[in-house]
Amino acid sequence: MSELPVPFSKEFCLELKVRDYECDMAHVVNNAVYLNYLEHARHEFLESLGIKFAEMARRRVSLVVTRIEADFKSSLVSADTFVVRTSLTRKGRLRFQFHQSIHRLPDNRLMLSAVVTGTALNERGRPEIPPELECVLDGHC
Amino acid sequence: MSELPVPFSKEFCLELKVRDYECDMAHVVNNAVYLNYLEHARHEFLESLGIKFAEMARRRVSLVVTRIEADFKSSLVSADTFVVRTSLTRKGRLRFQFHQSIHRLPDNRLMLSAVVTGTALNERGRPEIPPELECVLDGHC
Amino acid sequence: MSELPVPFSKEFCLELKVRDYECDMAHVVNNAVYLNYLEHARHEFLESLGIKFAEMARRRVSLVVTRIEADFKSSLVSADTFVVRTSLTRKGRLRFQFHQSIHRLPDNRLMLSAVVTGTALNERGRPEIPPELECVLDGHC
Amino acid sequence: MSELPVPFSKEFCLELKVRDYECDMAHVVNNAVYLNYLEHARHEFLESLGIKFAEMARRRVSLVVTRIEADFKSSLVSADTFVVRTSLTRKGRLRFQFHQSIHRLPDNRLMLSAVVTGTALNERGRPEIPPELECVLDGHC
Repeated sequence: MSELPVPFSKEFCLELKVRDYECDMAHVVNNAVYLNYLEHARHEFLESLGIKFAEMARRRVSLVVTRIEADFKSSLVSADTFVVRTSLTRKGRLRFQFHQSIHRLPDNRLMLSAVVTGTALNERGRPEIPPELECVLDGHC
Repeated sequence: MSELPVPFSKEFCLELKVRDYECDMAHVVNNAVYLNYLEHARHEFLESLGIKFAEMARRRVSLVVTRIEADFKSSLVSADTFVVRTSLTRKGRLRFQFHQSIHRLPDNRLMLSAVVTGTALNERGRPEIPPELECVLDGHC
Repeated sequence: MSELPVPFSKEFCLELKVRDYECDMAHVVNNAVYLNYLEHARHEFLESLGIKFAEMARRRVSLVVTRIEADFKSSLVSADTFVVRTSLTRKGRLRFQFHQSIHRLPDNRLMLSAVVTGTALNERGRPEIPPELECVLDGHC
Repeated sequence: MSELPVPFSKEFCLELKVRDYECDMAHVVNNAVYLNYLEHARHEFLESLGIKFAEMARRRVSLVVTRIEADFKSSLVSADTFVVRTSLTRKGRLRFQFHQSIHRLPDNRLMLSAVVTGTALNERGRPEIPPELECVLDGHC
């Protein structure tokens, strides 16, 4: 019987609003901007767990994305509000995965779903999960 | 015997240089910026075939990304130059796929590979490949 | 006795939070991003008055910035929250000015002050204030 | 007789092309993006003089913008190529000024002119011009 990955975390929700400068000539949010939304949600999520990207970067520890799979279902447009949902699962010793989705408000229509795989690099650029994240991934804090 | 997709196109190459504002606190190009690079390369490629995103958008025809799979192999940093390689394949009646990679120069190290699936929407927001793209995807022009 | 410009409007306040992707290698919000904040605040302000940039752009009417003067007093960093204050004054027949500031929260420290001069272009690209904005600038709605 | 500032430098020219993701719903380059162009040109200029922003940031020395005055004369659009011209002048002991312009190619039409004032902050966040920049501003290297 295969084990399903168990998300350690409850879903973290972040509500945002489209800004006009994020929209391109086709009057929709440009595809790269969704990655900005997803990253911001991941960082807010991690911050809620006491993990600060900026503080890590000062120690030359970095969280890096190794793979993104994103399905764009429909386009956000000017003035839309939406919620980014994020949860986190461990993937082996050195990797973790965020499952993320963007739903438009108030109709809750799914606009994007994504799986973002990442790792952490230590100050020598080698994969190593820093203690504060290790502790979160183990579900002990 | 299964048919492999035949890229209609020769590979299109675009050489770019990292700009410092594209780098984040970890001193690497932020992951969303790679999608900017990939989009710019696709648009330059299409422009080389006579297909202009801006002109289409004026007619309310839009090319939209429906799925992105991207593997981040290594990080571009300040002052790096790199080449984006792009080729295009038809996927059924209403979809097409760009195969893209980013190699750092001059050592040609693979930094990112991606498959970007897209479709086109007509002025009523329905999937429909516009004639100038149809012609390219068929390999007749 | 010289006449001082009379802001037609009460101050419009928008509270935002720095996103990590907006910070550059120096660990501060990149200078161009402040213009994103200011534009977003202006558009939210105009939206609160019933004026929608996206809807105007569809009619090929555009609001354009003709001059920006910005004093950068101190730098926003990761996780900072701040308020953008915006007010609007008419400048002659075809121009208007936004006075904007960014104060960090909760200490209310001034981070940036700016004067942004703009005009509107009609569908032929000629300066012309559209009726909905004319009405706001006159203080009649 | 008042002294005019003497630009130490010959003009540095950087040729770029508009990328479609830099254009907004009004089908013009968004105003904040011009600051990206100007910063990139300043950094390329400084790099040509041996001064590297990324390397400074690693030493926690940062070049910061204290004031921007920019006149937007006309709008760049999709597919435009343009040249950014940059020169540098000292302003007192702790400040320096970049005079920058953007001209569209091939008709050389002036699109934007700007004066960008900056200073440098040492690792304690205090204004101090680092030696490699001091040397450039003095015209001795």
